[in-house]
Amino acid sequence: MQSQAAVIAVDWGTSHLRMWPLDPSGKALDCRKSADGMRTVAKSDFASVMNGHLKALGLPDDVPAIMCGMVGSRQGWQEAPYVTVPCHIGDPALGAVKINNTSRDMRILPGIANRSLDKADVMRSEETQLLGLKEKMGEALTGLVCMPGTHAKWVHVEDERVLDFFTSLSGELFAALGAGSVLKYALDGASGPVDANGAAFIDGVRQSLDDPATILNRLFSVRPKSLLHDLNNNEAAAFISGTIIGQDIAGAKARFGDASSVILVGSGHLGTLYASALNIAELPSQVVDGDELAVAGLAHAARLIWPDRFNLK
Amino acid sequence: MQSQAAVIAVDWGTSHLRMWPLDPSGKALDCRKSADGMRTVAKSDFASVMNGHLKALGLPDDVPAIMCGMVGSRQGWQEAPYVTVPCHIGDPALGAVKINNTSRDMRILPGIANRSLDKADVMRSEETQLLGLKEKMGEALTGLVCMPGTHAKWVHVEDERVLDFFTSLSGELFAALGAGSVLKYALDGASGPVDANGAAFIDGVRQSLDDPATILNRLFSVRPKSLLHDLNNNEAAAFISGTIIGQDIAGAKARFGDASSVILVGSGHLGTLYASALNIAELPSQVVDGDELAVAGLAHAARLIWPDRFNLK
Repeated sequence: MQSQAAVIAVDWGTSHLRMWPLDPSGKALDCRKSADGMRTVAKSDFASVMNGHLKALGLPDDVPAIMCGMVGSRQGWQEAPYVTVPCHIGDPALGAVKINNTSRDMRILPGIANRSLDKADVMRSEETQLLGLKEKMGEALTGLVCMPGTHAKWVHVEDERVLDFFTSLSGELFAALGAGSVLKYALDGASGPVDANGAAFIDGVRQSLDDPATILNRLFSVRPKSLLHDLNNNEAAAFISGTIIGQDIAGAKARFGDASSVILVGSGHLGTLYASALNIAELPSQVVDGDELAVAGLAHAARLIWPDRFNLK
Repeated sequence: MQSQAAVIAVDWGTSHLRMWPLDPSGKALDCRKSADGMRTVAKSDFASVMNGHLKALGLPDDVPAIMCGMVGSRQGWQEAPYVTVPCHIGDPALGAVKINNTSRDMRILPGIANRSLDKADVMRSEETQLLGLKEKMGEALTGLVCMPGTHAKWVHVEDERVLDFFTSLSGELFAALGAGSVLKYALDGASGPVDANGAAFIDGVRQSLDDPATILNRLFSVRPKSLLHDLNNNEAAAFISGTIIGQDIAGAKARFGDASSVILVGSGHLGTLYASALNIAELPSQVVDGDELAVAGLAHAARLIWPDRFNLK
């Protein structure tokens, strides 16, 4: 089967590696997942780890590979220096870096950076998801794109040009407070997921939008509310979740002004929470499922780099 | 020597116990410190732990004891229910709760609570430090009092009446991010304390005051700044410290409006950082050393409860 493969697409991040042989139409023939993330691979071992996975899939030597993710960072296999904003969302594909000293043609897509001193920021892999987003939406990408997660990205795109973006420590703040603060009891003790339409979540979002300066008090406030007003763990966790997501949206409004709508790259429950919070903020969102955006973006980039290997539409 | 003791003062918190025999002028004759904090003492063992320490100091049975701290919480020895704001700073002394079934007269000072639903908050031990602050300042306590720490307290006092207060998750946020986030490298890797007058700290404070909505991005921003602009670990740690302290002050301004000045209960380096940040916020502060405020407050409360045991001035 793998002899049909036109290109190999690889998303190689900090904690995992995913590999998809793509057919000449850009469709994934298979998906191989591994825990061989950047974190566990020594600098000198990238080539042998890669070859091991290629061999396992029986992929011939003449099939080129396109990669994205932390594999292109300074600590990765080979550095793919950031493309600077403003840039076209196709620019990273044009700046792909060829791996030295290998017989197979293998390239790494660079990330994107804002290099200004006061707004310095970087992304690596989300730029490829943006390419995939364009594919999935089937039209020119324009608007404010919200990509929730451990380090959420907010990207201002106009006519497929990335004008600016920023990262917020949202998902990771929730995790750090749950692991190492007085909020642990509530975040650990909650049963089941946060209710995106419940009063506690909505209250948390609203207070962050209305009064962003007081977040340090509002994070603490669930503790006395549980003592004095019997706030339960589910309500406390929902309020903290709403507080952090609301503050994230307040930050995007402060940075980019009032957008008319948001393209929300959301999958699963986190996407549902952001969609509810964006509604409260009067920023209606178009939700695009975030799963498989990476492979769609890698396929798009591969078509730009090796057009002859694809049946172009 | 201990036979001179008029009263025993005890600060019994979550992680430690401190005990001072006081002479008839209210002066501490000794200080006994122990790790027998609330966290390690079973509910049924408070009496025996207390008696062990009293015996070690050779204190006769007729010397009464006054306590403050988490020992009076629902999970403590015996609950001393919160006094509700607004209240006089002497009210907790009047509401001290007598321990049942002991021959010695022992009382626990209650904390203070704001019981409103939207501003619910509690303190336990800081109310005693406020009493000590009044002693130390030697005049009527009036103004905005800032008590930095793991859970910082901001207290609005007018003519010795506590009108309102709030708690912020400031010190604990710094610790949680250092333990469990991408900021660990910077906060762990910094050599030496944050420079309260350095550019990075000042920049962090200013940005929080000017643009409090964007804190989630600003917390993350030290990471790309270290990649793109060689921000070093000391500068990153100073910026994060300034960001959190600046946000704490921005929250106090949002809650209490612009005070003309602040009474800063600061000891050590954290006090220096807050004093610098308050200056940047154009809130000049009167710094009062926070050490030994608890014992001064306990002495004051004991004089109100057992005036006959003291040589009143």
